Amino acid sequence: MKKIKNLEIQGAESVAIHSAKALSYVVRHQKQGLSKKEFWHNVKNAERQLFNARPTEPATYNVLKFMLAGLSRKSPEHVLEKVLEREKIVLEHFDKAMSKIAEFGARKISNGMVVYTHCHSSSVMAVLKRAKSLNKNFRVNVTETRPHLQGRLSARELNRNKIPVKYFIDSAGRQALKEADLMLIGADAVTSTGQVINKIGTEMFAEIAHIYDIPVYVCTDSWKYDPESIFGYELNVEKGKSTIFWKGKPKDVAINRHLFEKVDPDLISGIISELGIYPPSMFAEEMKRSYDWLFKRRKP
Amino acid sequence: MKKIKNLEIQGAESVAIHSAKALSYVVRHQKQGLSKKEFWHNVKNAERQLFNARPTEPATYNVLKFMLAGLSRKSPEHVLEKVLEREKIVLEHFDKAMSKIAEFGARKISNGMVVYTHCHSSSVMAVLKRAKSLNKNFRVNVTETRPHLQGRLSARELNRNKIPVKYFIDSAGRQALKEADLMLIGADAVTSTGQVINKIGTEMFAEIAHIYDIPVYVCTDSWKYDPESIFGYELNVEKGKSTIFWKGKPKDVAINRHLFEKVDPDLISGIISELGIYPPSMFAEEMKRSYDWLFKRRKP
Amino acid sequence: MKKIKNLEIQGAESVAIHSAKALSYVVRHQKQGLSKKEFWHNVKNAERQLFNARPTEPATYNVLKFMLAGLSRKSPEHVLEKVLEREKIVLEHFDKAMSKIAEFGARKISNGMVVYTHCHSSSVMAVLKRAKSLNKNFRVNVTETRPHLQGRLSARELNRNKIPVKYFIDSAGRQALKEADLMLIGADAVTSTGQVINKIGTEMFAEIAHIYDIPVYVCTDSWKYDPESIFGYELNVEKGKSTIFWKGKPKDVAINRHLFEKVDPDLISGIISELGIYPPSMFAEEMKRSYDWLFKRRKP
Amino acid sequence: MKKIKNLEIQGAESVAIHSAKALSYVVRHQKQGLSKKEFWHNVKNAERQLFNARPTEPATYNVLKFMLAGLSRKSPEHVLEKVLEREKIVLEHFDKAMSKIAEFGARKISNGMVVYTHCHSSSVMAVLKRAKSLNKNFRVNVTETRPHLQGRLSARELNRNKIPVKYFIDSAGRQALKEADLMLIGADAVTSTGQVINKIGTEMFAEIAHIYDIPVYVCTDSWKYDPESIFGYELNVEKGKSTIFWKGKPKDVAINRHLFEKVDPDLISGIISELGIYPPSMFAEEMKRSYDWLFKRRKP
Amino acid sequence: MKKIKNLEIQGAESVAIHSAKALSYVVRHQKQGLSKKEFWHNVKNAERQLFNARPTEPATYNVLKFMLAGLSRKSPEHVLEKVLEREKIVLEHFDKAMSKIAEFGARKISNGMVVYTHCHSSSVMAVLKRAKSLNKNFRVNVTETRPHLQGRLSARELNRNKIPVKYFIDSAGRQALKEADLMLIGADAVTSTGQVINKIGTEMFAEIAHIYDIPVYVCTDSWKYDPESIFGYELNVEKGKSTIFWKGKPKDVAINRHLFEKVDPDLISGIISELGIYPPSMFAEEMKRSYDWLFKRRKP
Amino acid sequence: MKKIKNLEIQGAESVAIHSAKALSYVVRHQKQGLSKKEFWHNVKNAERQLFNARPTEPATYNVLKFMLAGLSRKSPEHVLEKVLEREKIVLEHFDKAMSKIAEFGARKISNGMVVYTHCHSSSVMAVLKRAKSLNKNFRVNVTETRPHLQGRLSARELNRNKIPVKYFIDSAGRQALKEADLMLIGADAVTSTGQVINKIGTEMFAEIAHIYDIPVYVCTDSWKYDPESIFGYELNVEKGKSTIFWKGKPKDVAINRHLFEKVDPDLISGIISELGIYPPSMFAEEMKRSYDWLFKRRKP
Repeated sequence: MKKIKNLEIQGAESVAIHSAKALSYVVRHQKQGLSKKEFWHNVKNAERQLFNARPTEPATYNVLKFMLAGLSRKSPEHVLEKVLEREKIVLEHFDKAMSKIAEFGARKISNGMVVYTHCHSSSVMAVLKRAKSLNKNFRVNVTETRPHLQGRLSARELNRNKIPVKYFIDSAGRQALKEADLMLIGADAVTSTGQVINKIGTEMFAEIAHIYDIPVYVCTDSWKYDPESIFGYELNVEKGKSTIFWKGKPKDVAINRHLFEKVDPDLISGIISELGIYPPSMFAEEMKRSYDWLFKRRKP
Repeated sequence: MKKIKNLEIQGAESVAIHSAKALSYVVRHQKQGLSKKEFWHNVKNAERQLFNARPTEPATYNVLKFMLAGLSRKSPEHVLEKVLEREKIVLEHFDKAMSKIAEFGARKISNGMVVYTHCHSSSVMAVLKRAKSLNKNFRVNVTETRPHLQGRLSARELNRNKIPVKYFIDSAGRQALKEADLMLIGADAVTSTGQVINKIGTEMFAEIAHIYDIPVYVCTDSWKYDPESIFGYELNVEKGKSTIFWKGKPKDVAINRHLFEKVDPDLISGIISELGIYPPSMFAEEMKRSYDWLFKRRKP
Repeated sequence: MKKIKNLEIQGAESVAIHSAKALSYVVRHQKQGLSKKEFWHNVKNAERQLFNARPTEPATYNVLKFMLAGLSRKSPEHVLEKVLEREKIVLEHFDKAMSKIAEFGARKISNGMVVYTHCHSSSVMAVLKRAKSLNKNFRVNVTETRPHLQGRLSARELNRNKIPVKYFIDSAGRQALKEADLMLIGADAVTSTGQVINKIGTEMFAEIAHIYDIPVYVCTDSWKYDPESIFGYELNVEKGKSTIFWKGKPKDVAINRHLFEKVDPDLISGIISELGIYPPSMFAEEMKRSYDWLFKRRKP
Repeated sequence: MKKIKNLEIQGAESVAIHSAKALSYVVRHQKQGLSKKEFWHNVKNAERQLFNARPTEPATYNVLKFMLAGLSRKSPEHVLEKVLEREKIVLEHFDKAMSKIAEFGARKISNGMVVYTHCHSSSVMAVLKRAKSLNKNFRVNVTETRPHLQGRLSARELNRNKIPVKYFIDSAGRQALKEADLMLIGADAVTSTGQVINKIGTEMFAEIAHIYDIPVYVCTDSWKYDPESIFGYELNVEKGKSTIFWKGKPKDVAINRHLFEKVDPDLISGIISELGIYPPSMFAEEMKRSYDWLFKRRKP
Repeated sequence: MKKIKNLEIQGAESVAIHSAKALSYVVRHQKQGLSKKEFWHNVKNAERQLFNARPTEPATYNVLKFMLAGLSRKSPEHVLEKVLEREKIVLEHFDKAMSKIAEFGARKISNGMVVYTHCHSSSVMAVLKRAKSLNKNFRVNVTETRPHLQGRLSARELNRNKIPVKYFIDSAGRQALKEADLMLIGADAVTSTGQVINKIGTEMFAEIAHIYDIPVYVCTDSWKYDPESIFGYELNVEKGKSTIFWKGKPKDVAINRHLFEKVDPDLISGIISELGIYPPSMFAEEMKRSYDWLFKRRKP
Repeated sequence: MKKIKNLEIQGAESVAIHSAKALSYVVRHQKQGLSKKEFWHNVKNAERQLFNARPTEPATYNVLKFMLAGLSRKSPEHVLEKVLEREKIVLEHFDKAMSKIAEFGARKISNGMVVYTHCHSSSVMAVLKRAKSLNKNFRVNVTETRPHLQGRLSARELNRNKIPVKYFIDSAGRQALKEADLMLIGADAVTSTGQVINKIGTEMFAEIAHIYDIPVYVCTDSWKYDPESIFGYELNVEKGKSTIFWKGKPKDVAINRHLFEKVDPDLISGIISELGIYPPSMFAEEMKRSYDWLFKRRKP
């Protein structure tokens, strides 16, 4: 739990998986002989702590909700059995989802293309590596993504995989896009109206892609869907410390500390998830069809 | 001359002024008793060297052209007299021009405004400081301007002058603009069709300003006008070394090395120069009216 | 019924509720001893009259449809029982829906915001008052909405509720929006393709909001959805008398008498109804999921 | 089958119907006494051949899928019975669908309108003729649609039906649209993200319609939906031979041979199919609701 | 002078003409025997008063500047002679200019056109009446122009001149434009960058005209050019009293009191003045060519 | 003269040159001994006939104006002398102008570029061939330009000159542009507000180029400037016969017969003429500076 909070574990999928494991661990290690109520109290307590470690990640929220859904009045034994079963489902889900996203996304890449990406998304990396393994020839343009320079992570990972890559500073994003045929990005969250939350700069670059008629696909596990957004809840989008942006800045200079921004659904051609490729405005509908337990409202 | 070449002297105006001084120095220190032809040969030689030290700066080109215009067949004495006279004119020109730009530009700033700027332009700084000295209250949003981080120069200079400033990473440029009422930028060159050459990112931000209906003014000495652009010559726009963008990048990763880009004249409300405020498309016309010697074509 | 026709009852929800009550009244006051057929004939007759009193309001149409759905061959006693039951459901529906809309919508308002609205919508008022009751500080910009000046109704209502408000003439709508962070409007109807029918001027202002990147939310009871729009039926949108626009106009001057216009779904970020917040293009799908009886086609 | 391959049968609906008939013919004419496995082998073989005759048409693919869905392990007798039953359903489907499309679409046409269309679509023709039969007065602007000049087919057919028509060369498409109130087009395929595949030029004209605020409706049988698009498969869009574009072109001149292009769903107001009128982004959802057998994945 | 200040004299041309007459009157009625200095002092005093009566109108400013240009050290007799001479020139100027504008503008109107105008401009009226006198058939769409309803003045004047006219409320401006082929507006001032100051709503409508590809011409006497705008001076644009907008408004409701707004030069196809038809960005250049005395800077 | 009228002579420059020759021929072959008045009458007569042979071409109009400017009261001998002198100037003008345009324009083309052009312009061809002769490697995309298929002329001419070329039907113009870095077109006329008249389709393609941020340059002899456009005169733009568009069309089908259209100056980056490269809005100003005789108004 600490690792999650201290950001030692990175990537929304990773955090979600660890939360499932941690919750399962807690359930498994409860003392023997607790009453139903005491047992449930402890479990819920753990869930709350895990949730609060990363309160802005729908994937974690959804995993925790899934792990305990409908178990509130069950016996400790039943809860244990179900939680172990569901932990396995969660692990399998993320595993299979990633390979499906890679498969579906790779079909959008053809020979000779230039693909643009911003930041570093494991789903986008999976798509690009899958396309490479299918012997497709393409180049990737990547923007550096200040302040954390995740663009370098992407560039290194692609380079290790023998995928040609060209590196641009963020202010040259328009030039990076002008050469591109396709824009692929990850997502931190998806809302009921199809808005995608992603690293700052994404909407500006998506808008330019839209003007230049370059399709924009979001590659993401569908569990990043935020079911609370239906009811108007806004995600608490994380901000960074000022030193991340400017170490040693003069005291009186203010800093814009946003690290994420929303991307308008009109700028997105489709969301590539393990469910297939759907327009962002239809995503909530598709989620309801596939995971109805998600839409039974309850805040941990 | 060396200092100019080695970039020890920075800022287009500074380079132009030093070129005038250097040329005057050369003329003053020619050996006695040279023939008209020998004398002129040496002077032209110096001019060429000075020009080649910074071949992409119209201000330097224009200053050199002005210094020697119409003197090719004159006696060494006449040339000396004229060059000294013109050196003085050049120094006065840049001095007066800056204060006029500051005066005209400051009139565009009113109380309560948020002004956006990218990079660090001495003309823009002069405008903002002049507005401050007129007791206007306003805030400045500035983007950091990777790779050289000139946004920090701007932020520090404004902060020292008690002007409130807010600092944004380049990818947050849209957020910086959304809060702004006015965008002010400098220029490295202006062409016959009203295109402005400025630091990379400027066109992307100017386009966003245009969408949001925020006026964009370019603050610049008019001598940055490139008279050769009438004849289709394209400025050799400087690129940076890859290490400036990513020190220690993997060998096979390519780098986009552009440091400057053109800004479409449609995105610019007006150019604020010592001549007054004119639309970019009319700038060449106004230059012809004011400095006709500039339009007698000749490449040093 | 007369009151409805003579516009003594205003507001789509109000009319719908009164139609339910009136129909229930008619059912309750049928003579004893009528045959099934006679009884049904009378009831249908009343329904038709109520429908025709306001033929352009989907809410009324939907309420009437709901009240009698599946009862055509039932005994008078059964019909009476069901109609009373459904009347109650209708009243509860509109009551609960309004408070849900207020709740969901208020979550979109945060401190320091400027909210823009056009015309006077009871749902928008409910949202704004709810946000105020949550101690949020915000200002409302409102356009006057010629010819009926409903903007003044909005301004007065907000003012009575201590919400700061600024009043703009319609031609200054762009200025009203330029200061705004959020646009909230009501709806007279919503179609299968997500078009929203609202007071004239709404689309022009929504377009400006779209350009300025200001989210536009439509606050409306979902029963304003027009289920006939699936089959291509166009709503008969009401026009006003010329004297409303210009009393004493010269005889030969023509008058544009439109009072309503359609708003393109691309300009709308989401529809806030009692069902939650969904994109307009998904609204029909969500309606089907929630109220399937609505989609059994039948024109009263 | 040969006729289908040799393009003797034209129009997606026509090809789909003939494929159903051909498959049924094959089933009916199998030798007596085949084993279940042999029988099924032969039937599948026929299906594959039919599919390959026109691999880019979803309507054919969907019809073939429907004809054999769930029959793989059934007895020859059962297969025969089902195939005959389904053949009838297919024929009825296309017949009824066309008249529903005509009905729904005609409601969008009102007196005095100018309707724009590109190419020649049987669904669009059906809509226009239905509107005419309802005594609506309107004019049609049609672009010629190089290289096959199907605009002339449309012009002739409308002219025969006494509908006034004006003919434009493709480069005058903007002028054709500037006079128009409504744009109607057919479709060759519809994808999971709401993209519509249609004759080249359609997206350019739809974009102009969008700028001029002219609604664009796509008239199409819903079976042109491509269920494989959910998984990222791209339709193999047909190209033409160079001689179609320029007979006798110089050897070294390259030719752009695209005959079709994708239309962005943002440019489309609605898809008019036998299911009703829905936005393109919701089309996949509506298909799932209506034809769930289509979404059981299997490539023939 | 009083009449001017009290707005008894309306219309920028009218005010300018009366200022010329008033100044001439003052010069003519100076006491005999004044010293050169006393005489000039009185005259300058009068000029200042006239200027201050309407400080926001460039036409008045320019007329006053023209009347006294170069006369500061001349004898009273000489001044008298020149002022009388120039008064005549001014009167002739405005008279001839109006008929030239009418002539040039009328050439832009052809049979069958719909012309859109906002507010009431004497130059636009002159153009429309001239076109009518040339037997051109066209209709005018006019928006009412709250708060002063000058659209009704336009409608009445056109109606008296047998020109068909259709009246729209301001919020229906988009509908007024959608039917139009040409937009004609007047101007209160024109700046060095080609911005046009006109009645509120003009920029919003000009933007819509631009989107719909409808040419926008500004009809104005060139003396409305503001020569001070070159130096960054902003016109003090007049605001109205709140009671003009809402008589009896609740005390705490704020009012947006702008009556004028700037129109971006990019939205204007040309300025029709007595000098001919030029793009707004070239207007300052054309003024310099025609009236160089205007550009000798001096504030009265 | 006949040849000109019968379109045997093609291309605006060609027609203008032949008009100069024809007028000179007429002057040279006047009978001896004519009175000044008779002589002038005959010459003016010839001028009028030549003008009327192609009333829509400014180049011809300008040449004829130039040939006789200021000669109305001169002796036959003087007129003869001047006309011969000016004939020579005209011939030289067009010759030199073309090579300057080629030179200036070629500087805009760099290695690796794709240049797009529509129709067939001798100036554009000259630019492309000059660039080729400078050993630049580039490809040209050309649209076919129905109904006269001048795109094929361009394709053949480029192909003969070993310049790689790709041919697109007009409806694929967007695809042709999406691959392009530069758009070059010719002009039939240029107006005082910078509008360019060119072959139909040009504005639609220029608009797409603008969206995609591709610079558009117009290559044209400056004598195609129409000096009458200052006064509001509209060029009589030529239409084609319907058979050109559709041979054998059904009698009742109407045909849009436009062959030319105006291109908005906002869509044009610059006009490349023998005067240099200027923005369209400044073109009239530059013409006045260079050819003041053109602006003395007189209609032949």
